[in-house]
Amino acid sequence: MDYKPYITIINDYPEKGVKFKDITTLMQNGEVYKQAINDIVRYAKDKQVDLIVGPEARGFIFGCPVAYELGVGFAPVRKAGKLPREVVSVDYGLEYGKGVLTMHKDAIKPGQRVLITDDLLATGGTIEATIKLVESLGGIVAGIAFLIELAYLKGRGKLDGYDVFVLTKYE
Amino acid sequence: MDYKPYITIINDYPEKGVKFKDITTLMQNGEVYKQAINDIVRYAKDKQVDLIVGPEARGFIFGCPVAYELGVGFAPVRKAGKLPREVVSVDYGLEYGKGVLTMHKDAIKPGQRVLITDDLLATGGTIEATIKLVESLGGIVAGIAFLIELAYLKGRGKLDGYDVFVLTKYE
Repeated sequence: MDYKPYITIINDYPEKGVKFKDITTLMQNGEVYKQAINDIVRYAKDKQVDLIVGPEARGFIFGCPVAYELGVGFAPVRKAGKLPREVVSVDYGLEYGKGVLTMHKDAIKPGQRVLITDDLLATGGTIEATIKLVESLGGIVAGIAFLIELAYLKGRGKLDGYDVFVLTKYE
Repeated sequence: MDYKPYITIINDYPEKGVKFKDITTLMQNGEVYKQAINDIVRYAKDKQVDLIVGPEARGFIFGCPVAYELGVGFAPVRKAGKLPREVVSVDYGLEYGKGVLTMHKDAIKPGQRVLITDDLLATGGTIEATIKLVESLGGIVAGIAFLIELAYLKGRGKLDGYDVFVLTKYE
């Protein structure tokens, strides 16, 4: 399916020169949203995943329904100070800033096969940090799924050696 | 199903005297997470909803899989500055602070029957603000579903006249 007609391009947001990809118009369309999740579910089945991991907040939008459909757990990656128990932390760079991401120490059992989900692969900073968190807890990154890849930001360079699945790509 | 064994109580978090309800242990259990979503799906079918609305980030955790299973859209409620197009805004009070919540102006078609989802009914500030946003866009609040109600915080007082469904309650 071609998802681009359902994604809204916002020029000069959040900064001059950026063409922001707004996925809310896709999510508001129940049929298209379901199709996008199903595409990721098929990929995840092929990778035999035990757990879905996604960074807040937009990683939840795809990761949670995929976990539900597969009947596996979902473990959130959150900004510092949001998770109440003992965490592992990693610094990361974003397309428009930087910060600290965390996961609960008990979120992953060593050896679990993990699918990482997010809406967008841009510079890859968030996902690189998420991979570090998953692997520091003993998880195996079985695959990484995005709705959108911004190929011109070359985030894939940070994901060498990992299996990456994207539903739509902007060159 | 009794969900309490899967929810972790954290004493004195984020403030002295608060018994924080950590739902990540429930979400990490694929079978229990799926059961919780299915309970909300059954409720939503009964209410014949056209759209799911949930506040970030934990409203996505239950709302997105429910939208997926029903084949309806999901519209996010986000903090100010997070949505890229024209929004409606409302001020709100939280259990531990205050802020501004927003929705895209085109998120709801007038007359759509909306299910609002969130993880927790505490003082009800977030949900009261979400109801205002939904109704200001012409949506009909067909129901409101929570995983947890903290009955002692009396948030239900803010939801008079609305249909409220909770999976587990702390008195």
